[in-house]
Amino acid sequence: MIYRGELTVATRGRGTYDITRDVARLVAASRAKEGLATIWIAHTSASLIVCENADPQVRADLEAFVARLVPDGDKLFLHDAEGKDDMPAHVRSVLTQTSIGIPIAGGQLVLGTWQGLYLWEHRTSPHERRLTVSVIGE
Amino acid sequence: MIYRGELTVATRGRGTYDITRDVARLVAASRAKEGLATIWIAHTSASLIVCENADPQVRADLEAFVARLVPDGDKLFLHDAEGKDDMPAHVRSVLTQTSIGIPIAGGQLVLGTWQGLYLWEHRTSPHERRLTVSVIGE
Amino acid sequence: MIYRGELTVATRGRGTYDITRDVARLVAASRAKEGLATIWIAHTSASLIVCENADPQVRADLEAFVARLVPDGDKLFLHDAEGKDDMPAHVRSVLTQTSIGIPIAGGQLVLGTWQGLYLWEHRTSPHERRLTVSVIGE
Repeated sequence: MIYRGELTVATRGRGTYDITRDVARLVAASRAKEGLATIWIAHTSASLIVCENADPQVRADLEAFVARLVPDGDKLFLHDAEGKDDMPAHVRSVLTQTSIGIPIAGGQLVLGTWQGLYLWEHRTSPHERRLTVSVIGE
Repeated sequence: MIYRGELTVATRGRGTYDITRDVARLVAASRAKEGLATIWIAHTSASLIVCENADPQVRADLEAFVARLVPDGDKLFLHDAEGKDDMPAHVRSVLTQTSIGIPIAGGQLVLGTWQGLYLWEHRTSPHERRLTVSVIGE
Repeated sequence: MIYRGELTVATRGRGTYDITRDVARLVAASRAKEGLATIWIAHTSASLIVCENADPQVRADLEAFVARLVPDGDKLFLHDAEGKDDMPAHVRSVLTQTSIGIPIAGGQLVLGTWQGLYLWEHRTSPHERRLTVSVIGE
């Protein structure tokens, strides 16, 4: 069985947005009991990560780390058509994920106790982001 | 055909652990001749990589690189509930993979001559890690 | 339906190579209308990324960023059997992707307006790179 669900997330600018429940809802809609859910984000300046979901400080520290690693306005970057955060957003996306495959067992995503699935908006301004959840299962 | 296999790896602390044979064994158990095997690790402080499998120095150098990039005890990190290696483990996981999809041909994983699949334990202390291998094939 | 297509790319050395059309051609050959295409590269010194495809400067800046992050000939690296770019190529591969899963809808890859799929050659000399496109669909 092949199922495709679409998801739109309106971000409020740079930061991580928990999409675990949205994806779980689409997996439930697919009625797959066993299989694989592949999450895809159709952008190059926002990406996907699996991250600890208990202490919000983890994502704050992650943001601080990446802001230091790929600084906005770095003189190294010549492409800045959309501002100081334009090229860093592309680099951050490349260093994280555009697609993630998660197994389905008993009709549910196989997530560890502390695993959450996040959309990471890398642009400082709000954006509407489109995602696809592809379920292959039975 | 949908097949799901489970794998538990007891790590001895930080380092890379070759899981290629364990995954190949589950693919053989699935009896799929053609298809896709997706490996998933249900944690946020250990991750998956595909890496050169001939010279162990490659993984030692990789460890040295990441230890310099994301130093234990970095003052940038406020989240340290589980110690100086807690937050670096989360960052290392985000910069590598939580899931990897490998094609199956002729009943075998399509691996290049020098490709090995590794679990990368990012915590300094031993942990029991749970993985899922999802096979979709025929 | 399970389909496997093979792709060989002759690189001219370090840089990004657009493989979007090659992959789209294999997806068309599979005749899948809905499903998932997983692209796999059978190497550990070349990798896959999804990146902005409008301004070539984006990929030039990306190259500059990674060259600074993982410098050729870094004294940290002991493995240099194949030269100063040997170990950096492995690190660059680990920090990017060996497999990427892209949804298929209406017989086409679900790509955002600015998304391109690239093979990233990390070695300075030309190489022949082998890729597999696994399509699961209907």
